[in-house]
Amino acid sequence: MDPYVIQMHGHGNLPSVLDVHVNTAGRIPVPGKMKGRKARWSVRPSDMSNKTCNPIRAIVDSMKVKPNPNKTTISLSIGDPTVFGNLPTDQEVTQAMKDALDSGKYNGYAPSIGYLSSREEVASYYHCPEAPLEAKDVILTSGCSQAIELCLAVLANPGQNILVPRPGFPLYRTLAESMGIEVKLYNLLPEKSWEIDLKHLESLIDEKTACLVVNNPSNPCGSVFSRNHLQKILAVATRQCVPILADEIYGDMVFSDSKFEPLATLSSNVPILSCGGLAKRWLVPGWRLGWILIHDRRDIFGNEIRDGLVKLSQRILGPCTLVQGALKSILRRTPQEFYHNTLSFLKTNADLCYGALAAVPGLRPIRPCGAMYLMVGIEMEQFPEFENDVEFTERLVAEQSVHCLPGMCFEYRNFFRVVITVPKVMMLEACSRIQEFCEQHYQCAEGTQEECDK
Amino acid sequence: MDPYVIQMHGHGNLPSVLDVHVNTAGRIPVPGKMKGRKARWSVRPSDMSNKTCNPIRAIVDSMKVKPNPNKTTISLSIGDPTVFGNLPTDQEVTQAMKDALDSGKYNGYAPSIGYLSSREEVASYYHCPEAPLEAKDVILTSGCSQAIELCLAVLANPGQNILVPRPGFPLYRTLAESMGIEVKLYNLLPEKSWEIDLKHLESLIDEKTACLVVNNPSNPCGSVFSRNHLQKILAVATRQCVPILADEIYGDMVFSDSKFEPLATLSSNVPILSCGGLAKRWLVPGWRLGWILIHDRRDIFGNEIRDGLVKLSQRILGPCTLVQGALKSILRRTPQEFYHNTLSFLKTNADLCYGALAAVPGLRPIRPCGAMYLMVGIEMEQFPEFENDVEFTERLVAEQSVHCLPGMCFEYRNFFRVVITVPKVMMLEACSRIQEFCEQHYQCAEGTQEECDK
Ligand SMILES: Cc1ncc(COP(=O)(O)O)c(C=O)c1O
Ligand SMILES: Cc1ncc(COP(=O)(O)O)c(C=O)c1O
Repeated sequence: MDPYVIQMHGHGNLPSVLDVHVNTAGRIPVPGKMKGRKARWSVRPSDMSNKTCNPIRAIVDSMKVKPNPNKTTISLSIGDPTVFGNLPTDQEVTQAMKDALDSGKYNGYAPSIGYLSSREEVASYYHCPEAPLEAKDVILTSGCSQAIELCLAVLANPGQNILVPRPGFPLYRTLAESMGIEVKLYNLLPEKSWEIDLKHLESLIDEKTACLVVNNPSNPCGSVFSRNHLQKILAVATRQCVPILADEIYGDMVFSDSKFEPLATLSSNVPILSCGGLAKRWLVPGWRLGWILIHDRRDIFGNEIRDGLVKLSQRILGPCTLVQGALKSILRRTPQEFYHNTLSFLKTNADLCYGALAAVPGLRPIRPCGAMYLMVGIEMEQFPEFENDVEFTERLVAEQSVHCLPGMCFEYRNFFRVVITVPKVMMLEACSRIQEFCEQHYQCAEGTQEECDK
Repeated sequence: MDPYVIQMHGHGNLPSVLDVHVNTAGRIPVPGKMKGRKARWSVRPSDMSNKTCNPIRAIVDSMKVKPNPNKTTISLSIGDPTVFGNLPTDQEVTQAMKDALDSGKYNGYAPSIGYLSSREEVASYYHCPEAPLEAKDVILTSGCSQAIELCLAVLANPGQNILVPRPGFPLYRTLAESMGIEVKLYNLLPEKSWEIDLKHLESLIDEKTACLVVNNPSNPCGSVFSRNHLQKILAVATRQCVPILADEIYGDMVFSDSKFEPLATLSSNVPILSCGGLAKRWLVPGWRLGWILIHDRRDIFGNEIRDGLVKLSQRILGPCTLVQGALKSILRRTPQEFYHNTLSFLKTNADLCYGALAAVPGLRPIRPCGAMYLMVGIEMEQFPEFENDVEFTERLVAEQSVHCLPGMCFEYRNFFRVVITVPKVMMLEACSRIQEFCEQHYQCAEGTQEECDK
């Protein structure tokens, strides 16, 4: 009945030693048994959880500035089109969910890769002669995030590497590093509308390269690759025999003057896993329905990769069955008008924001062609008060209550990202505050005095 | 412009060599560049996907028998209470979803661990003085499966081990092995209503033991541990300083003569992660809403394990927001009658099935006290035609079109599991077919002739 002393870890990183008397339920510990665990508590998070890091969270959390109390906060930082209520999903989408609910047919377990009927719908929706798809080529996932997770998990072993765009969506690194997969960053070129630096890309490929991640249209750039550029990317993959993970979650979300070409339609040999979902185009990111489209016309992935994806999907058993049940109607009944309205709204905001910021001395926005974002270059030498993009955006919050993500969140310095899904008045107000902010802090760099005098 | 020869892998395990002419898009490969990848395709599934194995699928797939074409198929094999339509969820649950849809408030991203308001609801639903809970102690997940995944992922490193019940739910092994975590099986004792063999359990613990998985009420046994037995389990955990993952997805699903005691209510020192969800009690497994309840009154997990869980949740971003939005009403408005009706239905079926099979020579059912299952022992020596439980259940399908899972699916030989959620008439019909099957194959073992003559 003797209580005995145990040690425990307290909060944070400082292990604190506490004496706690534990009732051992009437038994005296058998000395022989104690060989294994020590007679004190020590529960530590795994390496995997330590390695799992969301850079946006880490950076934003460390930006401990308060917004200016005299100005309402405008958030241009969250890639969630639903937050302002100005972009509701279509009522056909909502109705489809109600029908699925009322049918009572979608409450049970679906196969872990999704209902056959739902996979058939996705297959026929994205099928085209150059890139045919059947139900067996579709895996439904819990958001595009899980689609990317499964693709990386099936293609790469710890110690291998993947190629990821810079600037780019931080989840690739979060997922890869949690699995011990190395991330190599290839450059996008702002001066070429964020096309890939193909030479740089190719120079990074080595025998440990497990896959190339191509994100088109792009978060954070809002760029859309031309057919010609996509063909050049495919040529690199062909030459180096590297499979592609095409993150096409913003697929079809391009403005009227651009065209979205699904990567798989341009190649008959490169094996491609295309990831997508309902989140962005149908404006329901919370519903967590994503998919993987397997394009493998030369049978390079073969059954092994397909089976691997199926096995991995069995770990947590797919997305919500109600959304799966609603998929057919969502894909068939959402009117063209809905997609059109979203895009023309985004295009208007993109033009407004681009136009306004292009006129601000010291800023160099890059015109977007799709998705929901805009990247803005900061001529740091004109803002000597600020050390970098993080400080720039921090001060922008403190003085103007405008939130933008610094380029650092996308591993790209001296830029910031603007989300263009906000209501038009807010977009305008934000731009004028950014302008005011820049005017207040702009200083002519030495040697450019003449320009400033103009 | 020279095409060059590549090799590819065909289906299955036999690598087939194909000559394929690939257009290298007008570029001759730079020899220097080829140092890395070889000039042929070879895409292999990762070790992780190879290590991910769902034993039920593997065993069921290898049972290639056809049901008897003259008898309708009765499936007592799938742990999905919705398949027969006799156990719909409550209409308050459906209504809660419609309200969440109509509100338009639950389409965007939630925090990766779930909305604060939804976590508050779960916390207050499961809060009790002996095991207090606040929102910060709740993490919402994509089904209980993901809850278990996150708990194992945060607690164990590759090379460590976890203790898992035998017979037990196979997902523990599937998840653990995919992460390189070793599984050690501790015995449950059928003759003691499937209580844990505590000596055996304790003998398995060593310095690499990262956690003890306790599943109560149990799949596949339908057993419910007494308060006294749970206290003994906690004493082992206390003595050995091993944290517990309590899989309580069947929590509160116990028949009138038993009582469910949440493990955490019985201990103030053992750190416990309790996993649960809507799947079973609310009869909506497809909706994929689960949770982790963190019980850590001695601060042994501390912030580190909590933060680890949060970080891991950011990989795929939580469950469907609509279901999260509906949680409050689901938990508050589902009438007691609904739970009561489900349980009295299950109890009736359990009694029917137990009674019928207890009378069958050669079978030894163990009476369940909760959940949705029943384990039936096979006196294999009385069925010399069959080598084991797999062959027994295989022949049962072939002759009687009755599907049950062999004990092997739960790493326990010479038993089979019966799912008791089927409509009563089906339950009766299944039992009488099982009886007919056993009578046809029963043979007196030598030395038990007298008994057979009775
Ligand atoms: C490029 C990109 N890929 C994937 C995702 C994740 O999508 P989901 O919310 O469906 O998981 C996002 C979300 O912002 C994204 O921007
Ligand atoms: C014991 C046990 N734990 C966990 C689960 C998984 O639950 P969910 O469907 O919520 O992922 C099941 C499902 O059958 C189960 O039987």
